[in-house]
Amino acid sequence: MQTLTVDLGDRSYPIYIGPGLLSKPELITPFIKGKSTVTVSNETVAPLYMDKVQQNLQGLKNCQVTLPDGEKFKTLEVLDQIFSSMLENQCDRRTTLLALGGGVVGDMGGFAAACYQRGVNFIQIPTTLLSMVDSSVGGKTGVNHPMGKNMIGAFYQPQCVLIDTDTLSTLDDRELSAGLAEVIKYGLIGDPEFLDWLTKNMSALMARETDALSYAIYRSCQNKARVVAADEREAGQRALLNLGHTFGHAIETGMGYGNWLHGEAVATGTVMAAELSHNMGWLSADDLEFVKNIFLKANLPVEPPASLSADEFMQHMSRDKKVQDGVLSLVLLRQLGEGVLTSDYDPQALRAVLERQ
Amino acid sequence: MQTLTVDLGDRSYPIYIGPGLLSKPELITPFIKGKSTVTVSNETVAPLYMDKVQQNLQGLKNCQVTLPDGEKFKTLEVLDQIFSSMLENQCDRRTTLLALGGGVVGDMGGFAAACYQRGVNFIQIPTTLLSMVDSSVGGKTGVNHPMGKNMIGAFYQPQCVLIDTDTLSTLDDRELSAGLAEVIKYGLIGDPEFLDWLTKNMSALMARETDALSYAIYRSCQNKARVVAADEREAGQRALLNLGHTFGHAIETGMGYGNWLHGEAVATGTVMAAELSHNMGWLSADDLEFVKNIFLKANLPVEPPASLSADEFMQHMSRDKKVQDGVLSLVLLRQLGEGVLTSDYDPQALRAVLERQ
Repeated sequence: MQTLTVDLGDRSYPIYIGPGLLSKPELITPFIKGKSTVTVSNETVAPLYMDKVQQNLQGLKNCQVTLPDGEKFKTLEVLDQIFSSMLENQCDRRTTLLALGGGVVGDMGGFAAACYQRGVNFIQIPTTLLSMVDSSVGGKTGVNHPMGKNMIGAFYQPQCVLIDTDTLSTLDDRELSAGLAEVIKYGLIGDPEFLDWLTKNMSALMARETDALSYAIYRSCQNKARVVAADEREAGQRALLNLGHTFGHAIETGMGYGNWLHGEAVATGTVMAAELSHNMGWLSADDLEFVKNIFLKANLPVEPPASLSADEFMQHMSRDKKVQDGVLSLVLLRQLGEGVLTSDYDPQALRAVLERQ
Repeated sequence: MQTLTVDLGDRSYPIYIGPGLLSKPELITPFIKGKSTVTVSNETVAPLYMDKVQQNLQGLKNCQVTLPDGEKFKTLEVLDQIFSSMLENQCDRRTTLLALGGGVVGDMGGFAAACYQRGVNFIQIPTTLLSMVDSSVGGKTGVNHPMGKNMIGAFYQPQCVLIDTDTLSTLDDRELSAGLAEVIKYGLIGDPEFLDWLTKNMSALMARETDALSYAIYRSCQNKARVVAADEREAGQRALLNLGHTFGHAIETGMGYGNWLHGEAVATGTVMAAELSHNMGWLSADDLEFVKNIFLKANLPVEPPASLSADEFMQHMSRDKKVQDGVLSLVLLRQLGEGVLTSDYDPQALRAVLERQ
């Protein structure tokens, strides 16, 4: 087992990474202060791992909430189901919420914990590659709004993140690839050494070789923990983690939540950001090819959906959280391994990227 | 004009109290960082004061959201209307939300500000006595759930609180009395000198004498600011502010939100807490009479609704936010002017209070 720490003063917390961790109650129990828990999961993950998690919680008053599976259920209405279950089960301020599942479960579980009786403790137990390397770490929680991804939410940190790498064995191939999009992101924005490692080990990752996956998870979480510790509420560098996300969120919102997986949209969005960076003269044609190829090797889409017009893209992007006083900032690539947040891009060059679909 | 400060380190903020403050843009504008605002109000208050507030915001991109009036609209669904309006108007992370109205508008506006894009700045502009002396100060925001008052929310502090005492001229008598319930509370839990002043000045307050009302507001806010600064997230003494609220919330939830005003339920709830304190031997029969009489002088109800059974009371109270690990703590009166939070009360004595309706 490996341990990382997200360093946030009195809100610091550990990330545990390794096989078989769901069977180690000693990792979870120190973070449960009260006498009750609620475990939030979904209909895909609960049959696989709920019993295992509950076995760690003996002697407590426990209840479970099973949500429908998918991004399209990441709504205020479904969030309200969590609140209702918690009230029915008389959860109180000392109840600990465990979020067992992928990014949707983690984001909604975390937001429910942030809001229930104005805040209860919670623990992230991610079971998808994407949530292990990205969404379970750093305290961004929330739900979607029909008009935009993750528009309603809170910064709210968990007590700990428990990553049992064994759970990846039940992850389907499409979800594995989606997770790799966020892994590749870390290399592109600020870790050229890791980017190099990824180009050499992509086949091992796609073949689910344990050591390769474990290393990729550890290195990704290390990157994420460092950035979050430096800029918890995204006043600056944390925005770099959103490489490809402004384009990607427009795809997810425009195509209907869940039709494109988040990681798929991020892969295509990152290629679009790389194209704009190329149009700005920052990336060479070879660099742009490199970016496309690494996503293609991870079996991810690199072309935006033909049905989404440039105007629709612009409309969705104008509601991005990186808009300030009407000006949209984008994360671009100054070079491979160096992301930059800028509002100083050529609008014509952006338009060119959006129109060539 | 008088100024108080809620002392919370880098989240400290001023409370301005006085007549004519809605016409002083220099008070609000220093707290607006971006170039846009959204003012949330309701259909009763907006026709009276929206224009006046908007005149302070010239040169900014402003939009308004007008909610239906009443506690029964303090829901997740109505909250979602605020989010939709903000997205339609392309509000971003630098938008400032102004909450113009009573407690419902302030609680929902504040919670919307806490959650919109994971947090935007907000300003409280309370227009009812109750919201001036209590809910606009201290950062408790949220909405009700069918199963319990204020069950969903956040601790989220405003940038400033602007109390224009002139707005009380449009408040109806029932709302004025409801506000006095929270004013009396401050005296009962920890300010015997103020309690004495209140007994002598209740007729002046009921007659809306300006000096008396201003003093009552100032003194109440001073009490509130002190308690919040010492215990922002209600780990201890802040709970004393909830004298009468556990019984009161049960009445509000049990009778249907809005049928009893919050202040009316708090008045009756406080009398019930005083009865239990009397049953415990802490208050004399005279003390109990004193508590009843001061609420009666403020034209407030002191008898719980006959239609709410003791069992129903217990059911609602069991979901109170002061339940920890299944044990309900109550705020009682050790003596007049001294509140105490305790779980060490006699359940039989509580039952007796609930059954004598």
